Parts: sequence; structure tokens; C-alpha cells
Amino acid sequence: MGRIVFTGGTVVGAEGSFDADVLVDGERIVAVGTDLPADGAERVDVSGKLLMPGFIDGHTHMDMPFGGTVTADDWDTGTAAALAGGTTTIVDFSLQDVGGTLQEAVNTWHEKASGKARIDYGFHVAITNLTDEVKAEIPRLADLGVSSVKIFMAYKGTPLYAEDADLFEAMQVAREAGVLVMVHAENGDVIAKLQEQALAKGNTSPVYHALTRPEEAEAEATNRAIQLAEIAGAPLLVVHVSCAAALEPIHRAHELGQTVYAETCPQYFAFSIEDLKKPDFEGAKYVCSPPMRDAWNREPLWRGLQLGDLQIFGSDHCSFNFEGQKDLGRDDFTKIPNGCPGVEERAQVLWSLGVLEGRISENRFVQVLSTNQAKVHGMYPRKGTLAPGSDADLVIWDPMLDTTVSTANRHGNVDYTPYEGLTFHGGPSEVYVRGESAYRDGEVLAEAGSGRYVERRFMKPEI
Amino acid sequence: MGRIVFTGGTVVGAEGSFDADVLVDGERIVAVGTDLPADGAERVDVSGKLLMPGFIDGHTHMDMPFGGTVTADDWDTGTAAALAGGTTTIVDFSLQDVGGTLQEAVNTWHEKASGKARIDYGFHVAITNLTDEVKAEIPRLADLGVSSVKIFMAYKGTPLYAEDADLFEAMQVAREAGVLVMVHAENGDVIAKLQEQALAKGNTSPVYHALTRPEEAEAEATNRAIQLAEIAGAPLLVVHVSCAAALEPIHRAHELGQTVYAETCPQYFAFSIEDLKKPDFEGAKYVCSPPMRDAWNREPLWRGLQLGDLQIFGSDHCSFNFEGQKDLGRDDFTKIPNGCPGVEERAQVLWSLGVLEGRISENRFVQVLSTNQAKVHGMYPRKGTLAPGSDADLVIWDPMLDTTVSTANRHGNVDYTPYEGLTFHGGPSEVYVRGESAYRDGEVLAEAGSGRYVERRFMKPEI
Amino acid sequence: MGRIVFTGGTVVGAEGSFDADVLVDGERIVAVGTDLPADGAERVDVSGKLLMPGFIDGHTHMDMPFGGTVTADDWDTGTAAALAGGTTTIVDFSLQDVGGTLQEAVNTWHEKASGKARIDYGFHVAITNLTDEVKAEIPRLADLGVSSVKIFMAYKGTPLYAEDADLFEAMQVAREAGVLVMVHAENGDVIAKLQEQALAKGNTSPVYHALTRPEEAEAEATNRAIQLAEIAGAPLLVVHVSCAAALEPIHRAHELGQTVYAETCPQYFAFSIEDLKKPDFEGAKYVCSPPMRDAWNREPLWRGLQLGDLQIFGSDHCSFNFEGQKDLGRDDFTKIPNGCPGVEERAQVLWSLGVLEGRISENRFVQVLSTNQAKVHGMYPRKGTLAPGSDADLVIWDPMLDTTVSTANRHGNVDYTPYEGLTFHGGPSEVYVRGESAYRDGEVLAEAGSGRYVERRFMKPEI
Amino acid sequence: MGRIVFTGGTVVGAEGSFDADVLVDGERIVAVGTDLPADGAERVDVSGKLLMPGFIDGHTHMDMPFGGTVTADDWDTGTAAALAGGTTTIVDFSLQDVGGTLQEAVNTWHEKASGKARIDYGFHVAITNLTDEVKAEIPRLADLGVSSVKIFMAYKGTPLYAEDADLFEAMQVAREAGVLVMVHAENGDVIAKLQEQALAKGNTSPVYHALTRPEEAEAEATNRAIQLAEIAGAPLLVVHVSCAAALEPIHRAHELGQTVYAETCPQYFAFSIEDLKKPDFEGAKYVCSPPMRDAWNREPLWRGLQLGDLQIFGSDHCSFNFEGQKDLGRDDFTKIPNGCPGVEERAQVLWSLGVLEGRISENRFVQVLSTNQAKVHGMYPRKGTLAPGSDADLVIWDPMLDTTVSTANRHGNVDYTPYEGLTFHGGPSEVYVRGESAYRDGEVLAEAGSGRYVERRFMKPEI
Repeated sequence: MGRIVFTGGTVVGAEGSFDADVLVDGERIVAVGTDLPADGAERVDVSGKLLMPGFIDGHTHMDMPFGGTVTADDWDTGTAAALAGGTTTIVDFSLQDVGGTLQEAVNTWHEKASGKARIDYGFHVAITNLTDEVKAEIPRLADLGVSSVKIFMAYKGTPLYAEDADLFEAMQVAREAGVLVMVHAENGDVIAKLQEQALAKGNTSPVYHALTRPEEAEAEATNRAIQLAEIAGAPLLVVHVSCAAALEPIHRAHELGQTVYAETCPQYFAFSIEDLKKPDFEGAKYVCSPPMRDAWNREPLWRGLQLGDLQIFGSDHCSFNFEGQKDLGRDDFTKIPNGCPGVEERAQVLWSLGVLEGRISENRFVQVLSTNQAKVHGMYPRKGTLAPGSDADLVIWDPMLDTTVSTANRHGNVDYTPYEGLTFHGGPSEVYVRGESAYRDGEVLAEAGSGRYVERRFMKPEI
Repeated sequence: MGRIVFTGGTVVGAEGSFDADVLVDGERIVAVGTDLPADGAERVDVSGKLLMPGFIDGHTHMDMPFGGTVTADDWDTGTAAALAGGTTTIVDFSLQDVGGTLQEAVNTWHEKASGKARIDYGFHVAITNLTDEVKAEIPRLADLGVSSVKIFMAYKGTPLYAEDADLFEAMQVAREAGVLVMVHAENGDVIAKLQEQALAKGNTSPVYHALTRPEEAEAEATNRAIQLAEIAGAPLLVVHVSCAAALEPIHRAHELGQTVYAETCPQYFAFSIEDLKKPDFEGAKYVCSPPMRDAWNREPLWRGLQLGDLQIFGSDHCSFNFEGQKDLGRDDFTKIPNGCPGVEERAQVLWSLGVLEGRISENRFVQVLSTNQAKVHGMYPRKGTLAPGSDADLVIWDPMLDTTVSTANRHGNVDYTPYEGLTFHGGPSEVYVRGESAYRDGEVLAEAGSGRYVERRFMKPEI
Repeated sequence: MGRIVFTGGTVVGAEGSFDADVLVDGERIVAVGTDLPADGAERVDVSGKLLMPGFIDGHTHMDMPFGGTVTADDWDTGTAAALAGGTTTIVDFSLQDVGGTLQEAVNTWHEKASGKARIDYGFHVAITNLTDEVKAEIPRLADLGVSSVKIFMAYKGTPLYAEDADLFEAMQVAREAGVLVMVHAENGDVIAKLQEQALAKGNTSPVYHALTRPEEAEAEATNRAIQLAEIAGAPLLVVHVSCAAALEPIHRAHELGQTVYAETCPQYFAFSIEDLKKPDFEGAKYVCSPPMRDAWNREPLWRGLQLGDLQIFGSDHCSFNFEGQKDLGRDDFTKIPNGCPGVEERAQVLWSLGVLEGRISENRFVQVLSTNQAKVHGMYPRKGTLAPGSDADLVIWDPMLDTTVSTANRHGNVDYTPYEGLTFHGGPSEVYVRGESAYRDGEVLAEAGSGRYVERRFMKPEI
Repeated sequence: MGRIVFTGGTVVGAEGSFDADVLVDGERIVAVGTDLPADGAERVDVSGKLLMPGFIDGHTHMDMPFGGTVTADDWDTGTAAALAGGTTTIVDFSLQDVGGTLQEAVNTWHEKASGKARIDYGFHVAITNLTDEVKAEIPRLADLGVSSVKIFMAYKGTPLYAEDADLFEAMQVAREAGVLVMVHAENGDVIAKLQEQALAKGNTSPVYHALTRPEEAEAEATNRAIQLAEIAGAPLLVVHVSCAAALEPIHRAHELGQTVYAETCPQYFAFSIEDLKKPDFEGAKYVCSPPMRDAWNREPLWRGLQLGDLQIFGSDHCSFNFEGQKDLGRDDFTKIPNGCPGVEERAQVLWSLGVLEGRISENRFVQVLSTNQAKVHGMYPRKGTLAPGSDADLVIWDPMLDTTVSTANRHGNVDYTPYEGLTFHGGPSEVYVRGESAYRDGEVLAEAGSGRYVERRFMKPEI
């Protein structure tokens, strides 16, 4: 690992685009310039390509237990898939055990990632049991490099579900600790009731997953989280916003000047509730929460990305095999493991549907995939920008690259892809992680274990 | 009780005002006309006065147990006070016992009212324990003449508090049964937590009652109730809206065409959080829930009345003596019984601050005090209008009547009035209930027990 | 003309509906009651029917010159058609001559109406030339019984068009005079430019009438009129609101508490821009201004009627024959006389599409056709209500009456009807004007000249 | 002019801030890096300082004739003042003569600037007479390096005023030509009428300047321009937004996805209508258009900057001496030359009130003063960013610099400053224009005539 100079490309950043060379020395970017003195550096010609900061995915679930099974991707295959999509850093959710501490959750996740991760990574902590001990632990998360906790308003009947009292108190504690609270915002009570009623009527097929999770249940919980955060004086991140109704309270909060961040995901732009109706239980491949929505929601979501109401675009990658996992719910949609793979497709979906369709600029593309991710998740400017001093995480984006998705050409470990058969225009031809070529032309080069843990610190960024 | 003709006055109704006589025969209005043939009827000259339909107060708590004590007003004194304020019908809340049925609640309330009420009355049922048996009872409420149930989102830690799952299911059942769901919308979880924190810090005085019930806690719960009602397909009545933040989701629901009714109350226009800061524990006299708010909220509330977002104006009369009741919370604001008297002052507050200040017309005054009340509470056109066939409940409103409020001239049984010393311009000089003079010039004429139960039926009115 | 008692029907008013008899003596209603003493009165059994106050149409153009031609309906045929639709009063637009006074306009219109009108009527004055003399005349309109003036923001290049300076000053003068300003709100500048460009490109067919009058041109002018009225402190009536975009600033003005009235018309609910594309120049039959819009606008307009943003429903009846009039524009859409007949169909359209489809109640139906019309146009409670003392203008509405529209069964004088072939459910079976049967079962009974001028006075009603 | 390396500072850009050196070679930035090889470059230590791209002021009026007089600042003194405020590029308004061409306007302005300007500059063209010849000229503006035209909706009665027909057609032509239309949005008709009325009543003092230009007149025109631009399909820039009412239609346009840019100015944050009431005609010093507003408007304007509804912050520098110019209106406020100096204070106002008060970040500061200015005004990335290849325009911002404003320490040519006596914390200690030190520690170093014309091209940026 020495010096590399990338020449002839166009640097595409959050602010704008310009032609320049980028000089890397070891793990860091050392200069961005015109005609940089290369003296001895390896020259990589990226003419006709776009140089972008490595993408960051603040929402993945690798090697995660769920309802008696575990996700298909572990940290090895999952980060391979991430790399193939241009992602050089992920922030994954370490789950507190019901009887355990947050520290233990982080430890467990370190064990999962260590020796396997091919890219850099951080951890959120998902709180499942807000005891007094856990409250006392939150302020110590900073020492662990953890800047964010997640609370679930959904999944009533499981340990994940948090009552408002706990959510609210977690917000209070987190505010004092400088920790960002993230919420999965769906009304768990309503959903549980609707699921029970659907099953009682014999409505067991995958589409009932969506029909029992109405948009209003997400909109309501989103608004609730926002108002509780306002009372607590705490910043908030609403993850996986799926529909216009949920976007609405976020938009209003911004109009009122509240610090609310919001994430949306590729599946809400690529799929719809119609996909859950596919025959032969194929609909199960599209079961995630919040669910795919009516297609008309997409335009409002694009507007949200344009206006900055939705500042980040994460994958919520949570992969289960169709055989042996998804089919656990063949007779009962509530038993279908929730989640879809997407860590590999995230950027290409956004480029094809967003940039190429004229909905967002290439700079907004970089913002929501990288720069804003780094800011919200407490890693900026170490990550998320091609600035001197930053980690040399780079994506060489080839606008001419065409990819037709098939399970065969995926880099993860799932037995299907919901994107099967779709063609993306534009994609990463090469990816560097801290100065090392980690992916090139379809091949993952980074070794398992080469990824490194990133300590994060939340700075309440204005974005 | 025979025939009476009211002559020389101006009929003020929900639609408009015009000069006409009103002929009553027995308990009913039989004609509204010009130069009605009186033949033998008693002639009551109401020249210079306004003839209005008797006011209806859909929100009272008479003889209600609360935290080990019971309201100062029972059905005798409470309905005497109501009459003195022009109110000829109330709808009171019968509370389900935790282990009891709804039928028992209604029975208990019949016992309380019977032999004491001086005006007509109906009952809502406040559900405290939504068991399967209770769910099965809801459709049978119609047989009891009950058209509305109330659910509490506040008061976490007491039996009143309902989880979303119960609230939601109650909405589903009520929709099928044609019953209207009313909500006390405040986030009980947040309030309980803030109360606990305040007390832990030694913040025990009355103003902390308001400070631990922030506007957002009401706004949030209001929005939640509205969204749950939307999912359930059920009409909704949000009672005692106290602030702009809570009005906002109601306004939006109306813009989207949802059937949401909303009530506000006189205390939110006459008082503010400043009153809770009065020295010598006087602030306790202003403790009710939702609490008095910052005064700037009043203008948005007036706008709500003007636009029709707030369709009814109820008293939430719930009286406790200062000595012996309010002072239970002298060392702990959470122990102050919640509630204020207001059944007597309701109309005069609205006339003085609303009509005389040019904020609403005399017809809107009648709408929110009487006509809309009758519609929302399922009694129209028997009540709420001066139409032929309707009950002969009349208020003779004297615009020249001045009243300076003192505890001494009140007709209820409370040892204070929050309105002490205020002067109202305009008020009822005489009130008739079903053709009988029930109040005249400060004197209650109706006997205890003369009031009659009104069976109600919810028709989902468009107002 | 003596005493008549209508028995057995349901009185449907703006406030509500109830079963009662209505007693008429001469030209006035004298009582509404149950079992009214008929003594000698003619008994008219209206069992199964609805008794409503006579409809008022505040927007007609009878015997109006337009671009070298004159409307097909004069006051004889036009008011016959009105009667057949249940309309007992119209307010028509008297047009100021460019060099003339307002008084002269009113005189001219008196001449047109006198001896011909079969129903009661009032006049607006449409100002075309706001000289200092005309400004001085506005305060004297009250003496003529005129309570409203109309200003045109459209029709640039004709005398009708008013600059903002004149519109604004007219508002100031009208406010002082207690006169209501009405506006035709479309941006005349933009339309003139687009028309010129369309013709230059050879786009001459009727649909270009709509395409050169974009929704934004109406929305803009509507907003402009509202803001100018706000500065001037003047109430405003925006007529013929045709689309969601124009409704939006009206809704906002209401949210801010401004006194803005707004009218919509049946053609915007029954037709769309698609109708202007009909072959063989048939599209010309649907040319009016503002034009028919994309059909999706209808739902927002219904919402406007529901929320009360649109308080009145007028016909904008302005009829031209297809042969000899509409076809003046066969080679140039700008030469097609603007206007459609509708005075006869107005109520039936609203009943069929509004009440029967569950969008509005029968009481809202009465409000927007009659009660609010009377209030906005300064005739309440003489007109617009079935109250004692009011004119005995009644519609006996038969919910079972079916009408299939054809030119043959129309009562006006136009050679086509845009409603050809449509079937309406519900309609007027009999109509009374001031106590006289004026229409029954398809036959107009009132004689030409029996209508009477109504002096109007604007009271700035809260509706 | 050789090589310079700025070391030890923090680069503050639109995207974020990071520690890096900046290497300049001749007129251009050649590298941004850590430990850049200086080999022979001059080393400038900027430790403890912030390095920002030179500020751009897209809104100045230098050497501009106005009502028989000419602005106090010409291109020499005006650009000296600009430099002292950190501004390295301005875009000034070249005014078309009524009988002249746009080319002539540009030529005239070149003559004014040439030999005098100390910083770089571009020209907008202000159209005063949209003849067919002028329409034909608009597409040729690109050849002149002009990417924007300005239209005045205000100033009725002067040649500047444009009717809607002309404004609209200019938008159509500009859209085709890829030229940005800027508007001064105030309703000239209303203002002229109110001025006439005020003078007629003897209301001649400076405060009537504000009272005759109500907020609604700006709001209305802003909305009108937006809607006309929507019809024309043209991007729009609304300059000098002064109040919440005018911001509102801009916010709505953004919600609907329309391309509308908006500028606000320092005077609307520093002053209010109260300043116009200063005695001894001092109020005249605060006369500009739109006028200073009620102070409550400031918070909504800050929100506009936060949300990105207001993307640029320009000075509208238009200076007139108090003696000999402002006092032309001593007896008639309409004769007070409109305009205030501000080109020198612009950045310091925004830093003190915005950044130091926690309302905006230092990065938003750079966006609205520099990066967005460059984008909107068609100069990015040549200007507006510290990127390799960009012009070496730099501000060295010293957060510790305190400045107390006095006429004596200003660098322009006006005999007063409205900011007299205010103290700013933070300011530019040194400024470079294209690699040359142009200002240092209070002294302007750049010579008159050293500024260079910048050809601009509008690219419809997404910001």
C-alpha cells in the first residue's frame, strides 16, 4: 500500500463536480488537485469515470438472529455484496439481548464482524430492554465508539417493542449523552391487532403482510416519535421511510425547525405492494417492514429526497433465503422473516431511477449515499468526502457500465434477489477501501477481515 | 303545563336570525311563525331578547369518583348550575368499574341522576377495561340509548388508561355498532414520566401540573387517535382541545375529508398557564387536564371555532372544592383532583369573548353550544333547534344582562369559582325545559328529578 | 293568492331536516309547525317530498351582449328555465357601458327584465371603466338596491379587463360603501399572449380555448385578488372557481381568517377538458371561462364544498346557440362566444353527483343553492330560508323524479344543451314564487313579468 | 503572482469543514491537501483562521442612475467596499435604456466597470422595454456572457415597470435561451395607488415608504411571478425577499418541485420598519425596496435560509448619500432614492446574527454567500468553491476579528452607514482575488481596474 494518483476523472462530491486528480498516500487522501506531482505514485487512469467518496450504508443487518433463524448474509458475504455495490462502510445493528447489557451487544457484534468484514464498519445498538442499568450505560456508549441507539415502536409482542415511556426516556438520556436515537416507526399495537384479525379470517398469504401494516400505522408512529423527541429535546433519525403519509410529519417537523433526520431505502422505489401478490409464494421475497407500498408513493418520496426531507438512502439489507427461511411463513405471513437483500443494489437503483431519470443530481446522489450518511452517523469528515485527510475510500463510477441482475452474479449469500432481471445503467467499476483496491470489475478483492471498526461520534449536523 | 307563545323576540338559530314567535304546546314546540294564533296560550313577551334552543353540554362529570374523592357537584347541584347557564341537557360520563360491565355503569349513573337531575340528560360510557365481554357489549349500547364511548389515552397507571391496541379495537367495534368514539388525547406515558421526574426534583407546586403535560403530548395523542380512527374507518370525537398544536392534526384530518369532531372548552379561552402560578396554592383551582396553556393559543382556537374545525364547545365541568379536595395535592401536584367547574359559565364566556368581541356570530354561538352538540351527540332534531316537533327547551338570552361572577352567586356546590370577579355581558334571563320555566332571573325553578333521560343515536352528521 | 298549507313533507333547511308543515299567507311564510291550524287554507299534500327554500342563482347572464351577439336567453326564456330548475331568484350582471354610468347599467337591466322576468331578481353591476365619476357612484349603489360589483381580471384587450390599480381602488371604495366586490379571476395578460401564440401556430379549434387558459392563470389571479382585498380590507367573492389550483389560495385565506367567499358551478363537476375535444366543432358547446378542466380537479372541488371553502354554487348561465353564435368561432376559438347554459340543470347536477353520491348532505345542498346565496348576495332572511316572515319561495323536491335531459325538454331558448342525454335522479316537482305556483310537473306557470326586483344589502355574513 | 500555499487553516466549504492546505499557482487553485509539497511557494500561515471561497454578491448597483441622481458608489469605491467585506465577485445590473438595446446596456456597463473594478464581475441585464427587437436579443445574451435578465413588477409609472404580458413573454423567451429570469416582485399598481393616497393625506415622511409597500404587495407579486414561470416552464429567481408572506409562495413552489431560486439580504435581518421612524429624516437612510419590515419576519426568514428556500444572500447594495441624495425626498418620501449600502457588511451581518447565534452553520454561510451564488449566477465551479482548477479567490476569515462599524472605517463612498455603531464579531482579515492579495487588515490592496469580467452561463443547478 503506497501512493496512488487517480487521474483524468471527474470528482463528484456533495457540493458539486469538477475535474481533478486525487492523490492517495497509504490509507488517506492527501491531495485533490490539478496536475498533482505524482513522483513515484502509481497512476490510475480514470478518464471518463466519476470519482466519488466510498458509499456508506447506515442500515444493515448482518449475521442477525430473527425468529429462530439467522440472516443469510454474515459479515463475510454481506460485506462482499456491499463492496460490489460501492459501499465501503456499513453501520450495522448490534442487538441487546433481553437480559444483557449494551456492552455485551457490542462485544457480540465485534465477534461477528472480526475476521470477516471486508469493509469498514460501525455499530448501532438496538435497545430491547431499557432497565435502569441500560439507561446508565447509554452515556458510556461514546467510549465504545457508538453514537446511535435504535428503538422499535413496532414488533409488539417481541422484546424489540418499546413502550412510549421507554422510548421517551431513552430520548432524554440519549440527548444528554450526545447519542442519536433512531426509530423503527410503525404502530405495533395496531399491526398486531390487524395481523391477528387477518389470520383469524384465514388471510395468510404474503400480501397480508402489507395489508396489516397500513401507511397510517407508519405515519402515526413517525409523528409520535417526532413529538416525543421534541419534548425530550432530542435529535431523531427515522429510518426506512416508506410512504408519503410517513414523510408528511417529517416535512412538517423540518418546517418547524426540528432536528429530524430521515432515511429511505431502494426497495420503496423499485417495488410495490403488487410484488407481494406474486404467485407461488414469490411475494414472500418482498416481505420487509415497513412493507412495499402502493406505487404512487414513489413520487412523494422522490420529492422528499429533492427537498432534503429524506437525507440518507440506506439499504436495510436483511437477507433471508427463500428456501428454508422465507418459506417458514408459507402458511402464515407473520412467520415470514422480515427483510430483503439490497446492500449490493442500493447505489445502482438510485442512479438508474434517480439520476438518469432527472430526479436528482449526481451530487445529491453522493450526499444521500455517502456524505450525509457520514454526517448523520458521526464519521464525517473521516468518511463521506474526498477531502485531504479523509480515508481513501473511493468509488470509481462508470456511467457506461450496464448490469443485469441475477442471483448468479450477486456477491452475497442469498438464494434469490428481488431485483432479478432488472438492468441498471451505471455502476462501480472499481472500489478502494483505505487506499487498497477492494473490488474491480465484478471481483471482490478485499480479504475477509480487512475491514476495520470505525469509532463514531454524533455532532448534530445541519444537513 | 299548557300552551305558551313567546312573542316579540328574535329567533337565533344555527342557520340565521329572524323575528318570529314560538308556540309551545306541552313539552314540544309546535310552531314558529309571525302573528301565531295564540288562542288561549300564555303569552310571554320576549321583546328585546333572543330566543335560542336550550344549550347542550356534552361534557360533564357529575357525582364522579376521582382518586378517593368525589366531585363537589352531584346531579342536583350540578344541573342547577347548568340551568343557570342556559343549559337544558347534559351528557355525562358513566364510568365502567374495572371489573364491571358497561350496562352496570349506565345503571349506576341512572341511579345517580334519577330524582336529582333538573334538566334532561344522556350518558356516555367511559371504558376502562376492554375485555372480550365489554367488546361484545358495545353493540348493545344502542338499546340503552347510549351513542358514544370514551377512551382515555392519558392517566397512565390508572385503570382509565387504554393502550393503543384497546383503543384501536374499540374503534373497530364502535364503527360496526354505529357508536361514536370519544378520546381524551394526551400521551399518558410521557406525562407519567415527566411527573415522576418533576416530583423527583422537588417540583411539587400546581404549575408543574401544566409543565408535565406539554402541548406536544396532547398534539401527539390527538394525531394518533385520528390515524387509528382512519385505519379503523371510525368517526372520532376529540374532546377538550386546549392548544394550537392539538388543533393542527384535526385541521389536517378535515382537509383530507376524515370525519373527526372536536370540542373545546371555556377554560382554555379564559385562563392560561399563568393562573396556575398563583400564590398560596391558588393555582390548584385551575388544575384540569389538558391544562391551561400559554395564552397565545387562544387565537388559533378561535380560528378553529370560526373554520369549523372545532364544532362543539363543552364545559368539562368537573368540580372539586378547594378545601378538602384540591388541597389533597398541596405537597404533590399529582394528587390535586383534576377538573374545574364551568357548566354555569360556559355560554357567557363564549358570548362575552366570542360574540361581543366580533370573533364569532350569534349563530355560530348557537351552533357550538346547542345545534352541533345535538347532532354530534345524537339528539337532533329532538334537541338543539327551535323547530316544530322539537322539545321546548328554550333560552331567553338577554344581551343587556350583566353578571359579575362570585362564589356567592353560583348555583352549584363548589367552594370557589375560577371565574371569580369576572363580569359577563349578556346571559340567560329565563330558561325553559320541555315547556316548563326552569330558571328565571337568578332563580332555579326546576325541581330536582324533573330532568329526563334522553336516548341518543349517532347519525354521523356532516357539520 | 291566499293561504296555503303544505303538509306531510320534510322541511330541508341549511341547518337540518325535520318533518313539519309550512303555512303561507299571501306572499309570505307565516308559520312552520306541526298540525298547523289550516282554517281555510288550501292544503297541498307534499308527503314523500322535501320542502326547500327556493333556490337562488347569484350568477346569470340574461339578454347580455357579447362580442357582437347577444345571449340566446332573454329574461323571459331564461327565467322560465330557472324556474324549471327550482330557482326562484337570480342575480344578473348589468354591464356598464364604457362611456356610461353604473346607474345607466342598472336602468338598462331593469328595462330588460321588466315585463319578462318570471321570478324575482337583483342586479350586480359589472364595472368596465372605473373613472372618478364611477368611483363616486359606487357608494350610491345601495340606493339602487345593488350590493355587489364585479371586476374582470380576464378579457385583456376588451373594456371588461381591469388593471390591478383599478381593481384595488374599486375594492377600497367598495369597502367604504359596504359593497361586495366580485372577481372573474384569470390572468388576462397571460391568456391573451397564449391565445395569440396558439393562433399563430394554427391552433384554432375549441380545445385551445382551454389550453390557453391554464389553471395557474386562474390560481394566480385568484391569489392576487385575495391579497389585494386583504390590503384594501375588503370582503371578496371569487366567482366560478374551476380547479384545485384556484381553490388553494381561497383555502389559505380562510385559514388566515380573511373574508373571502367563493362560488363554483355545475359545469366543472359535469364536464372536463375532454369535452372540448369533441369532433365536428361540438367542443364549442363546452366553451366557457374559466374553461372545463382535467377531471381530477373535481374531487378537490367537492372537498371545497364539504369544507365550506366554496360556499355557493351558481350556474354562470350564459347561453349561446350552437348555430349562428358558437359557430362564429369555427375558424378561431377566440371568437366562440364564452358561456354555457345551466340555470335549469344546476340543482339536479348537484343533487345527483353530490347528495346521491354521498359527497354532501341535503342540508349542504340547500346551503350552497339557497341559504348561503341569500346571505352572500344580501337577501337573507327575506330569501334563502323557510322561516316565518320570509318570502314564500318554495321548491317541492321529489327525490323519485327522474329526468333525462334533451334539448326538447329544456325550458330555455338555446338550440342545444351540454347535458344532452344525462339522467338526473331527483328534481323539483313544483315551485312556488312568493306564494304562487310558478312551475309544476314540467310546465312553467308563472307569467312573464311576474318577477319582482329585490333590493339587496351586503351584511358581511359569517358562513 | 506566483505560487502560494496557505497552511494551518481550516477549509470551510459548502459541504463541510476540514483541515487542509491550499496551494495556488498563478490565478488558480491547484491543490487542496495535507502537507502539500510547497517547493518554492510562498507560505502563508493561516492557523486559527478559516479559509473560504471568495464571496460572491449577485446583487449590486454600482454607478447606477436613479431618478435624476446616480449612486454614491461607482465601480472603484463600490468594489473597494466589496473587498473589505470578503467579496471577490459581483454581478451588477446593467440597465437597458428605454430606447436602447440590451447590447448597449452591457456595453455601457463595461465602460463603467472597466479600469475601475478591483474585483471580478458579471452583468445581469435589466429589461425596461420588451420590444420585438429586445426579444430577439435575449438569445444572443449568452454570447455576451450574460446568463440572467431582470424584470421589475414594481415601479409603476417608470420605464422599469413591466406588465404581466411582457414579464410572461420574457420568461418564455428566456427559457428557450437558457437565461435565468430574475424579478423584483412587488405589485406596482397597488403601491402607486397607496403612495398617491398617502401623499394626498399629507403623509410624506420616510416611514410611509414602508407603509405604502405592504407585505401582501410583495407576497402577491412573488406568487404571480412563480405561477407565470410555471406556465412558461421557466426557472425563476426572486430577489430581495423581505418577509414571511413573500417567502410563503416560494416555499410552496419548492414543495411542488418547481425550480425557483430566492435571495434575501442583510438589511432585512438587521433593521426593521422601526428604523424608518427615526427622527430628523434619519429614517431615509433605511429606505430601500422592498422596505424594512416588522421585526417578527426575521425568524421566518432565518427558517427560509435553514430549509434552503432562500438559497442566496445578496446585498442589494445601492448607495445614496444622505446629504444631497436621500434628502431629495425630505418633503415627499416617494422622492427618496431607494437603496442602502451593504456590500461591505453582508458577510459580517450573516456571521454575527446567523452563525454565532446558532441559526446556520459555517457551511451554510459559505453556501449562501459563495457556492450557491456561483451556481445560480452561472459561474460554478470557476467561482464559489476552493476546488482545484477554480479561481484562487479566497477569504481568510478571522473568527476573532471584531469590527465596530462607523462611516469613517467604511471603504465605500457613502456619507453614512445604516450599520453605524454595530459591532460584528468575525470578519475577513485578508482576501485574495485570483491569487493576488487584494485586501488585508483594513486596507484595500487591489488596484482599480484589476477586476475582470466573468462570462456566465446558467445551468439550472439543483440546490
